[in-house]
Order: sequence, then C-alpha cells, then structure tokens
Amino acid sequence: MVKDWFKQIEDMYGQMVEWRRHMHQHPELSFQEVETPKMIASILESFGIEVRRNVGGRGVVGTIFGAKPGKTIALRADFDALPIHDEKDVPYKSKIDGVMHACGHDGHTATLLAVAKVLQENRNHLSGNVVLIHQHAEELLPGGAIAMVEDGCLEGVDVVFGTHLSTEQPTGVYTYREGYFMATDTDFTIKIQGKGGHGSAPHHTVDAIAIGSQIVNQLQHIVSRQMNPLIPAVVSVGSFHAGMASNVIADTAELTGTIRTFSEEVLDQIEKEINVIVNGICAAFHATCEVNCVRGYPAVYNHEEETKQFVKTIKQHIGEETLVEIDPMMGGEDFSYYVKEKPGMFFMTGARNEEIGADFPHHHPKFDFDERAMVMAGKGLISLVHHYLVSEAPKGELKAEATS
Amino acid sequence: MVKDWFKQIEDMYGQMVEWRRHMHQHPELSFQEVETPKMIASILESFGIEVRRNVGGRGVVGTIFGAKPGKTIALRADFDALPIHDEKDVPYKSKIDGVMHACGHDGHTATLLAVAKVLQENRNHLSGNVVLIHQHAEELLPGGAIAMVEDGCLEGVDVVFGTHLSTEQPTGVYTYREGYFMATDTDFTIKIQGKGGHGSAPHHTVDAIAIGSQIVNQLQHIVSRQMNPLIPAVVSVGSFHAGMASNVIADTAELTGTIRTFSEEVLDQIEKEINVIVNGICAAFHATCEVNCVRGYPAVYNHEEETKQFVKTIKQHIGEETLVEIDPMMGGEDFSYYVKEKPGMFFMTGARNEEIGADFPHHHPKFDFDERAMVMAGKGLISLVHHYLVSEAPKGELKAEATS
Amino acid sequence: MVKDWFKQIEDMYGQMVEWRRHMHQHPELSFQEVETPKMIASILESFGIEVRRNVGGRGVVGTIFGAKPGKTIALRADFDALPIHDEKDVPYKSKIDGVMHACGHDGHTATLLAVAKVLQENRNHLSGNVVLIHQHAEELLPGGAIAMVEDGCLEGVDVVFGTHLSTEQPTGVYTYREGYFMATDTDFTIKIQGKGGHGSAPHHTVDAIAIGSQIVNQLQHIVSRQMNPLIPAVVSVGSFHAGMASNVIADTAELTGTIRTFSEEVLDQIEKEINVIVNGICAAFHATCEVNCVRGYPAVYNHEEETKQFVKTIKQHIGEETLVEIDPMMGGEDFSYYVKEKPGMFFMTGARNEEIGADFPHHHPKFDFDERAMVMAGKGLISLVHHYLVSEAPKGELKAEATS
Amino acid sequence: MVKDWFKQIEDMYGQMVEWRRHMHQHPELSFQEVETPKMIASILESFGIEVRRNVGGRGVVGTIFGAKPGKTIALRADFDALPIHDEKDVPYKSKIDGVMHACGHDGHTATLLAVAKVLQENRNHLSGNVVLIHQHAEELLPGGAIAMVEDGCLEGVDVVFGTHLSTEQPTGVYTYREGYFMATDTDFTIKIQGKGGHGSAPHHTVDAIAIGSQIVNQLQHIVSRQMNPLIPAVVSVGSFHAGMASNVIADTAELTGTIRTFSEEVLDQIEKEINVIVNGICAAFHATCEVNCVRGYPAVYNHEEETKQFVKTIKQHIGEETLVEIDPMMGGEDFSYYVKEKPGMFFMTGARNEEIGADFPHHHPKFDFDERAMVMAGKGLISLVHHYLVSEAPKGELKAEATS
Repeated sequence: MVKDWFKQIEDMYGQMVEWRRHMHQHPELSFQEVETPKMIASILESFGIEVRRNVGGRGVVGTIFGAKPGKTIALRADFDALPIHDEKDVPYKSKIDGVMHACGHDGHTATLLAVAKVLQENRNHLSGNVVLIHQHAEELLPGGAIAMVEDGCLEGVDVVFGTHLSTEQPTGVYTYREGYFMATDTDFTIKIQGKGGHGSAPHHTVDAIAIGSQIVNQLQHIVSRQMNPLIPAVVSVGSFHAGMASNVIADTAELTGTIRTFSEEVLDQIEKEINVIVNGICAAFHATCEVNCVRGYPAVYNHEEETKQFVKTIKQHIGEETLVEIDPMMGGEDFSYYVKEKPGMFFMTGARNEEIGADFPHHHPKFDFDERAMVMAGKGLISLVHHYLVSEAPKGELKAEATS
Repeated sequence: MVKDWFKQIEDMYGQMVEWRRHMHQHPELSFQEVETPKMIASILESFGIEVRRNVGGRGVVGTIFGAKPGKTIALRADFDALPIHDEKDVPYKSKIDGVMHACGHDGHTATLLAVAKVLQENRNHLSGNVVLIHQHAEELLPGGAIAMVEDGCLEGVDVVFGTHLSTEQPTGVYTYREGYFMATDTDFTIKIQGKGGHGSAPHHTVDAIAIGSQIVNQLQHIVSRQMNPLIPAVVSVGSFHAGMASNVIADTAELTGTIRTFSEEVLDQIEKEINVIVNGICAAFHATCEVNCVRGYPAVYNHEEETKQFVKTIKQHIGEETLVEIDPMMGGEDFSYYVKEKPGMFFMTGARNEEIGADFPHHHPKFDFDERAMVMAGKGLISLVHHYLVSEAPKGELKAEATS
Repeated sequence: MVKDWFKQIEDMYGQMVEWRRHMHQHPELSFQEVETPKMIASILESFGIEVRRNVGGRGVVGTIFGAKPGKTIALRADFDALPIHDEKDVPYKSKIDGVMHACGHDGHTATLLAVAKVLQENRNHLSGNVVLIHQHAEELLPGGAIAMVEDGCLEGVDVVFGTHLSTEQPTGVYTYREGYFMATDTDFTIKIQGKGGHGSAPHHTVDAIAIGSQIVNQLQHIVSRQMNPLIPAVVSVGSFHAGMASNVIADTAELTGTIRTFSEEVLDQIEKEINVIVNGICAAFHATCEVNCVRGYPAVYNHEEETKQFVKTIKQHIGEETLVEIDPMMGGEDFSYYVKEKPGMFFMTGARNEEIGADFPHHHPKFDFDERAMVMAGKGLISLVHHYLVSEAPKGELKAEATS
Repeated sequence: MVKDWFKQIEDMYGQMVEWRRHMHQHPELSFQEVETPKMIASILESFGIEVRRNVGGRGVVGTIFGAKPGKTIALRADFDALPIHDEKDVPYKSKIDGVMHACGHDGHTATLLAVAKVLQENRNHLSGNVVLIHQHAEELLPGGAIAMVEDGCLEGVDVVFGTHLSTEQPTGVYTYREGYFMATDTDFTIKIQGKGGHGSAPHHTVDAIAIGSQIVNQLQHIVSRQMNPLIPAVVSVGSFHAGMASNVIADTAELTGTIRTFSEEVLDQIEKEINVIVNGICAAFHATCEVNCVRGYPAVYNHEEETKQFVKTIKQHIGEETLVEIDPMMGGEDFSYYVKEKPGMFFMTGARNEEIGADFPHHHPKFDFDERAMVMAGKGLISLVHHYLVSEAPKGELKAEATS
C-alpha cells in the first residue's frame, strides 16, 4: 500500500513545486504571516480536510479522520520566512525586498500539503487520525509552536513527527539522532550608549562603534577561553548597527546575536559572561550599556521509542542506505515544544544538490534547496503514518466518521 | 553708521528666529534641498535684491549693488542639514524623521538673510557691491561650494568672508586664526565580503562582523602608532552596518569614516595605511574587501591680509574682548574653495549657552545653539562690509545704478 | 592474595611520601634529569631488581621476573618537572628556583617504586614478568616515551598500563574512558619582526608588542569562529615575551602556545589558520613573521580489551564506586606511544583534597596533590598485575629463572 | 681665538674615538655605572682638572678655573647605557650581553672630555669657570640629574648647556627650539593577575596573556580616541612578559610602557585613562590588576635668553646654515632639572650618516652615530664657553686662583 502512496506523492511533484515557488516569491516574516496561512487553509479545505485557522495566532491545523479508530499522529511543517534579501538569480526569486525563504520552510509546507492530499484520499485505510500542524513563526522568538500547543493543537495526539529540508546533506538521505538532536539558544541584544559628536573631535565623544567593536572582539573569548572545549557552544553576533554618517561619531551602537549550546546551565553561564564582558569594556571607555537576553527554544530531544520506529519504517519502505545517524546540531527549532508535550522525533531530509546551486548554507542570501527532496520528505512522513495507522494499528472495525 | 546698522539687525532678531526655526523644522539633506533655496530666494527678492537661482546646482546668489563704485565683498552661508535624528525636546524640533539641522546652517542662513536686508536698505551708503552666497550641500562631498565657484559665484568678487556658529565657544566671542584654520579630510568606505550562514555554524561562514570589528580596532593604530605625534590627525569610523538578524551570520559589513589632518601628504599616507590594514585583516580571515577613499575639502586657509582686516574691524566696532585666537580645528569646510579662488577668511561665532541646553557638540542628536549668536554673527559680517565698502572705500561719486 | 599486597603498599605510605617529597624538593626539567634517574635506579637495585639505565636517553627500566612463565605487563611512571616557580608554602617546597613538580610526576615515581617493591617481594606468586618503565621528559617534545620505545623498553611486553594523579577528581576514584582518552597537540612558536626605536616615536618603528597583542586577539577566532563547535579544540598562547625597557619599542616579540584536539586533520587545519592569521596581521602592520609548529604526542587511545580488564579488576578488588567513566581530556601524554605499540590503557587516579589545599589545576604554581592518592594509584597498578599475572595466568609450572 | 680652540678639538678626534669606543665596548646600565665614572674622573684629573666623585650617587663633576673672574658656565654630558643587545657588526661592538650604548651617551662623554682638555689648556683666556657635569643614569628614573643638582653640582653656576647627538639629523647641523623642547613622561607598569593552569584547559584559568593583549589593544584608544588631536601625546608599551612554557597558561603578565606629552595635565589624564581601561578589561575577564605610574622627567624648557645667545654664537663662529629650528621632540631628558634650577638650553647635534650605517633610530639594537659629529658637538659647547667667558665677559683683572 505504501508503494501506491509513494507513487501518488511522486505524481504530485509538479504541484508541490508550484506551491513552493508561489510561497518562495511571496515570503512572509514570522508573526506577520497573512497570505500564507490563508493559502494553506484553502488548499487543505479544497481536499475536503477539516481546518482550524488562527491556531495559537497564525497557525493552521487540519485533521484527517481515518476510517477506523487508532492512534493520532501529528505531522508538523512551519511556513515563515526570514529578513534576508534574496540574491538568487532564479525565476521564482522573492518578490519582497529583504524577505526570503532562506531556510526551506516553503518546501516543508508544500510537502505537508501534498502528504495531506495523499492521506486524505487514502483515509479509508487509516486506523486513526492525522493532525496536520502548519506552524507560523518558527524563526522568531517566542516562536509559533508554544502558542499552538497552548491552543490545543496536540490534543488527542499520540505521537508527533516533523522534518526539515537540509542543504547540509545531499538529496537522498535522512539524518537523525536519538536524544538531543538540536541545540537550545539565547538571543541577546547589546545596546551601547556612548556620546556622539563630530568625527574630527573624538576626544569630545565616547565612540560607540569603537567600543562595540571591542565587545565583538572580546565575546570571542567566551568560547575560546572560558568554555570547556568538550561542551559544544557558539556565541555569534548577527548584527551590528551604529552611525548614520561617515563624519559623525555614533553615540549608540546596537548588536544582536545568538548563543547555542545543549544545556540550560551553559546558557546561564554564557549569558553571565556576556554581561561581565560588556560591562567591563563599557566601564573601560566611559560608556553605559544594556544587555538583554531572551532565552530561546529548548533543545530538541528525540524520544527513544519514536526514533526506533522511524528507523524501522524507513529501513523497511525506503531503504537502510538513506539513513545517516549524525552528531547533534547547533541550530535550534521550536519543534522542541511538541516533543516536550508528546512522544515524537524530528529528522532532516537531505536537499543539497551542487549541480543546481542548492549548496549554500541555510540563512544565506543564495540559499536554495533541491526540490526533489520534497518528495523524499513526503515519503518519510507517509511511511510514519503508514507505520502507526496501518502496520502497527490495532485491527478493529471502521469508525463511524470515516464511513460517513 | 555701523551703530545704526547694528541696531537694525538687533531689531530683526525675532524675524531671524522665525526663519531659523522654520528651516529647523523643515531640514533638507545635502543635494536634496528644494524648499530651502526657494524660501531664501523669495525672501531676498522680497527685499528687492536681485537673485540668481540654481547656482552650481541648488545654490542661491543675491547681489546688493552699492550706490558708489568700489570693491565687491562676498558673504557666504550654507543651508543644508544632516542625516541625524533630532532628539531635542523643543517646539521647533525637526519634523523630518532622521534629518536635522545639527550643525547650525539654519542659523547661518537666517543671519545672512537679515544681514542682506540691513545692507540692502543701506545700499546708498555702500561703495561697491555685496554678493550673498547661499550655498547648498556643505555636509556632503563634493560639496556645493566648488560647483558654485565653477558657476561663477565669485566673478567680480574681491574678498570673501564667512562664519560658522559654534557651540565650542560661548556666545559673545569670535574665534579665528590666520593660516590653516580648518582641516582637510578623506571620507572612506570599507566593504567587507565574508560568507553568510546560520549563527549556529560559524565554521561554515566568514563572519563579516567579527572581521569588521577587528578592522575598527586596528584602525586605531594608525593614529596611535603610525603617525608623528606632532602632526594632528584623526581617523574616525562613523558608521558600521552589518547583519539583519541575530541568528544569521552577516556576509557583508559596511563601514564608513573620516580622516582629518592638515596636509595632503598625511592624507595620502593614512589612506595607504587603511588599505594595508584592511587588506591584511581580511587576508587573515579569508574575506575580501573594497576600500574607497573620497578626498574631501581642502584645508581652509585664512589669508593674512583679510585676517588682519577682520581683527581690525571687530576690535573697532565690537570690542577686542570678543576676539579669541585659537588652534587650528580638525573639522573640514568647503569654504576652502572660496579662499583658494579669492582672498578671504572664515571665523567662528560662539553660540554656546549651557543654561538653555545649547552645549552639545556639533552633529549631536541634541545639538542646538544660542539664537542670540545670530545677531553676533550678523554684526561681524556687517562690520566687514562696512570696513571694505565704507571705511576703506575710495571716496567717489554715486553710481548710476544705485540712484535709480 | 591481593589484600596482602594492598596491605604491603599501605605500609609503605610513609616511604612513598619521603621519596616523593625528596623529588619534589629537587625537581629536574625534562631532558635535564640527572639525579632523579640515578635515585630511581639505586632504589630499584636496592630491592634486588635488575635495572637498565639511560634507556632512550635518561629513562630507567627495571624488570621483575615472576616465578612462573606468563605474560609480561609493563607499568609506566614519568619523572620530569616543569619550568614553573613553586609558590606553595610547605616544608617540601621546591628548592630549585623556577622549577617545580607541578604535574604530580614525583608522585607517579614514588608510587611505581613502592609497587615495584611489593611485586618484587611477591615475585614467587607471579606467572610472568613486570617491566617498570620510569620515563624521563614527558613534559617536553619530543618526549621520552618514543625514545624509550625505540630503545626497546617494550620488547617482550604484552600489555602496558599507566596512571596519572589528577586534582580534577577527588581522592578515592579512578577516571577512565575507552577509546580516545587524551588529546593530540601542536606546540607553536610565533616570531614577529618589527622595527625597534624610541618609545616616544612610534611612527619610526613597527611595534612588535602591539602586533603580537593583535595576534593573540585574533587567534581566539580560530576556536570561536572557524572550528566546528562539536569538535573539541583549544588554541592557547602560553608565553609572550617582548621588550626590555619601558621606553624602547620592541623590535621583536616571541609567542609560544599549544593546540589541542583529537584528530590530525583538525591539527592540520588549525596550524594552517594560525599561519594565515599571523601573516595577515603582520602584513597589516609592515612586520614580518615566522611561525613554527611542532607536532606533539599522538592522542592516547585506550584499547577496548585492556580497558575492560581494568574495569573488571578494579570492580573486583577495589570497588565499583571508585570507577568514573569520563569525557576525553584535552591534555596530551606521550603514553600514547606505548599504546600505539602494544595493547594497553591509561587511567587517572583522583588526588584532589580541598582540605589540604590540593585543589589547584595541574601546572599551577600552587599545584599539590593528596599524597594518600599514591596508595590508591599503587593499588590500581597492583590489581592489574595480579589480574594478568595471577588471576588470568595460565596454570603452569615454575619457570627456571624464578627458582634460581 | 675660537678658531684655535676648534683646531685643538679637531686634533683630538682620534682620542675622542678611542674613548668613545672603549666606553661603547664596556657599557654600564643606569645606576650601575662603576668603571665609566672612574675612567672619566681619572682622565679629567690627568688634565689637571679638579674633580669631585660620586656626586649625587655616581656622577663626576670637574671644574676648570678661568684666569679671570666672570660667570660660571656648566656643560653636561651623560654616560649610562641601555638594556638592549648590541646587534651591530663593528669591531667596537658592546662586550656586555644585553647592554649597549644605544643612545650616544658614550659620544657625549668623549666630547665633553675633549672639550675639557681644550678649555683647561686655555683657561688663562677664560673670565670665569667651567663646570663639567658628567652625569650618570639619564635613561632610568628618577635619573641622575636631580640627585646631582641636590648634591650641589649647580652651585655658583650661572648658565647651563648640554647637547645630544642625534641620528634624526645629518651630521653638520644643530637643531634646537626655544621654549618646550623635549617632552615630559610617565613610566607605567601593569601587572595582571589571572589564574594559571594547563594550556589544554583554558576554562579553568584566567588567561593573563589574552587579557594583557586586550589591554595593549585598548591602550591605543587613548591616543586615537580620547586625546585632543592637536595635543601631542604618545602611549607606548615597551615590554610584555608572561608565561614560561607553551603548554601552561600564564597566571600573571607584566607590561611596562611610557607616556609622553608636554603638560602635566595631559599626563594626569592619560594616567587616569590607563587605570580606567586596565581595570575595565580585567573586570571583563575576572582578573585583578595593579597599575603603577612613575612620573618621569619634566619637559625640557629652553630659556629665551640662553637660546638667543646660543643662536648668536653658533651663527658667528660656525655658520647660520648649521642651525635648524625644529618642532618639540617627544623624547624626555632629565636635563630639564638643570634648566629648572638655572637659565640654560639644550640642543641636538646631528649625527646621522647613512653611508656608514649611522641611521638607525635611538634605542635600536643597531644604533650607531657618525663619530665626526663629536667634533661638531664639541665646537658647539666650546663656542658657548667662548661666548660667555670671553666675548661677553667683563674685562677685569686676573683672578688670584688662576695665577697660582
């Protein structure tokens, strides 16, 4: 039966590409998604799937009711874009200046829509239900997941799965790991208050750019000098903005950045050191400062049992050679909130293809992925549904709903 | 006679404030001035002064024809604003977000308008003409002065004077210096091309912010280590912009800054060292870079004879106690183009008044000046006109034009 | 039988302390050891043990011949000291200015001497021989181990073990790990050639201290920006020497440091980045440079089978509660050469005791260890000998040699 | 008469070279001079000059009594060497490792000895006395001058002169300036107390080298950002010493340096900023620190009248073309103590000669000067003595002393 389902999703490849490219051209920033959830909801409804809108804000949840009773499996795809300017030279390039799907969420959404269609058409074979979680705002704290969970999207759900297209692995493989799979993080903002003035008279000023630059310099010491080298940790400054004119010394500078690691204790320690460093440097130069740390998503923890089931079904239906066990990843994901609530796991679907330029890192202005990987991602999710709602399903009678 | 003229400009104080505050609320950036020159021209015309518009682009030149033949003295005032956001809490605060008269050019303009009215009304006493140079775009290279000079604004002019309101000196004094008075400068732009990527994976990127920060650090060495300590020189980075999101490593950073000194050779040397440093640092971190240097205005050189005449007339009419000889200043001014072409000099009119908050440095978001200083500036200019066109004027007959 | 042996080594505690403190007061630098090996050899000979001197240079190898045939087990202890000035306030403080046993090698030696005495006295119970490897020069490349191995110290040896006293763990525990246990490293030297001159005239010089300081700063970026955060790596600058007078700008600076990681590829990459950074910075400031990297000891790899046997015998004779499995350690050890040649393993014996001030890190000027831990270390080694030459020994007849 | 004296000193050139090279080969550090003052005293005595030894410690003062009464003129030469290793390849290279006459004091001494001989032989022509101040310890605070002054070396002196050989100017010129001629300075020492440990475990340490390097980096900001660019100021770090081994993280670092400027207020300000910076950086990294500033020699101030007399006599006897008026110099000199006490002035005697390698900056390991310049220096001093004790001397009778 799985083979048929696989065939059906393969046949949908053109449609997936169309959906994906439409979203790619019309990206929407986290918590500002309007058209994307509207499009998702209307596509799901066009398949006859029951849809709940505005879940946890801007999320969309669809439910496919299987013909027989059984478990409920949730599949999640996120749909927000990033404040990056698309520098690709492709026909489906972003039409919005400074906004871009640079992490593949458009592909996740197109994939889950296609999976939804296949499963909805085959719902008579399902013992149990499938909850389709189309999540907004994965890229920006506090993220959409926690609000969707609070708004009940996991009610009645037994297991939850999700996947992420990844240009770190070639198309054709799934990467995964039991236990801690993705990092936890803190977003920090550093505001330096110096004293502005004319560029020709630095001695009348406190130069916020000179001080900010020292801070970037010193922050490197946290990882290079203060952290146990056996504990993975990253401190990156992602933005530095100060000054408006070449001949005016900037009175303020604002830096933002991210901390990544796998434990709350290490996050605590690094946040503390950032404060100590920024205060020390500012004291050294008569500036004042403000440091704000916003704790990010918890680390994504893949449950033992669900990871085993994932491995089992992929081996069985897709092939052992597609499975690659990997080290934990430093990136964060608010998928963690689903697996804190329910058993589940998260895996990566390889989407790199050098030949078509799909080999830039995520969040790069030229990021693109191999669209064939959407079929691969879809097959992975379909396998899991088949595993829980067909292979492993209790052999019972038809449910009333499914027959209606 | 000077006393009468002084009385007349004092009586115009309310009008000067009104003009100045109007411009203050409606600042226009360099080379984007539209309404300001229009206003200036129509005010001058309302006094019956002949006006030439669009001189050298957006400049306005008025001419007052004295009743008798004699020398022609030019007075210059600039009228552009800066890309700084006004942070003052005053009723006449800028109405344009991010644009502000933070250097007092609104005051220069109001002053010259009032001076024009007084002189026009007293033209029967003048032996010679007064050219009123209302200059656009002093704050941005290549500046308006050179274009106005090329467009003939100094034709027939014998001497040229100008003044700048300054919060570095209290209201009530004039500061000046014979010889080099204001610095020459270079505007530089440094573009760093790294490689962007996810904030959690610095090893896949070349971090443009980390590199840019190193460059800011190293640029300090030019003045602290590479320059003769007896030769005044400044290298300031005025803006640093990189990155859009806290969790995306920036692939590019752009820094702009200014170099100030008094000699072309030193500018040459510093430009060379900036190139060497930026290239060295970028090589150290696998980045590429682009450094652009735009040579600024020449140093303002106050001519010996005209400086002596300035001192003489101020002592005579205003008082020796108002004259303060000072060190050369590190700021630049495109007034230098006028004194390269014609004899002349430039002086500062003190405009600091702590009691009313007029004590911030120029180009500071809270910059303001003591409006009473406009009267002082006006008297200085009027004295000079009186000196050249009355006191020192040849005693001849009335000219035809002036009698008409 | 083990219990008796344990009792015997406990009874030697006073003697071990005496030996250790003598060595502690008379430390000898790596490759300069003269008195220490002399003392070791004569003590071993006083027990009736056959000794070979000057093995691989300054090493001492003793052999205890068991009464019956069997395996040969080698036990290794190093005996060199460090160029650190002893700052402890204890009666057994180093008598040599600037030289100190700051890593516990004196304790290793005292332990192995006591173990030797116990085993020599019980050689009639041994089926097989014990090789006592007293190694010189562990602290300084190329280390004494490789020369001792080349000089035949492992000839006929079946398994090799060693232990290190460690203030990172409390007295009473053994820490260990199968597989990579200790890091590999590179020692680097950076020589910067600037141009000296008078401190008052930096513009006539190329300031080697300013440049060296920039290099230390930039080297932090290797670990913080260029390395995969999941791969443990350390780059530390251990010395910085430049300049002789406060008012003379230094023309040269010399920095030395160490790189630690677990793979040769990562060492290669870091060595390359150090070269790129140092050359870039020197180019940025008109200096020249020389970078020399000396590859250090390979990573210590604990063999699977010998680690299992270690765990088994410790559990049996000393107690499971004393065993702590740990993460790999960033320190290096030339014990790696022994386990490259023969099966074997290396473990740590906890020696921290806050109450007596034995809680400073290794290589600290106040380093000391809990001397009771020598008994613990001795028991560990004795257990291993018992395991291989008694418990697991083939039940055969007496050997000719042992009966003679 | 001056021509004869000039001839006499020219004839002494071979002797001056011999003396100078002897001292060059046997340099003695400041406050450690033993053989040099002994040699000076015995040479002076061999001329029949009365000598006082151990003046103010290790200084030597000779007095030449003129035949007639008149003024007393003091001439000063210093004789200490520097802790720099001589890297020249010349037969007269320093025989003392790490000690070198790298500032020309050997030449000053040889010059004054020759001048002494000429004047002693011509004392019958002198109206007044000549005090020969051979000063120890000019290179090291608190300097020998203040102690020699306190010990009475200027008693009865009317005017005081001195000269310095300088490779900044070619042989054949004198450089000078009325008013502030040489800078005042502060010597500073910065001790950083971190926490030592093994190079592989930075997270257990506070790395004094990393922190010291940051401090060197930040200190550049004092001159580049915090000082008025019109006020000459230098902050140089002259030595940086930390760490003993490549694999041990240094627990302390010691930096020394010098501040140069012309006013006490600026010194005060810079000392304060150094403290603020060092404390800020150490706070940023959990280190403690100690900053010691030792105020150096006051600025050398050349008196107006004596400078005029110097110019007059040089023009008259040597030639106007040899006189070059220069900017103030950033170097310090304890000659300032003499001119604080008595009228006087200090000038430079050019001694650069590229053809013979005498073109390295002072304090450079390859420093050498053109020995012909000693004759030039001698003629300058002789002219001054002639001026004050012959040309401008009152025409009186022979003094009793001189006839005896």
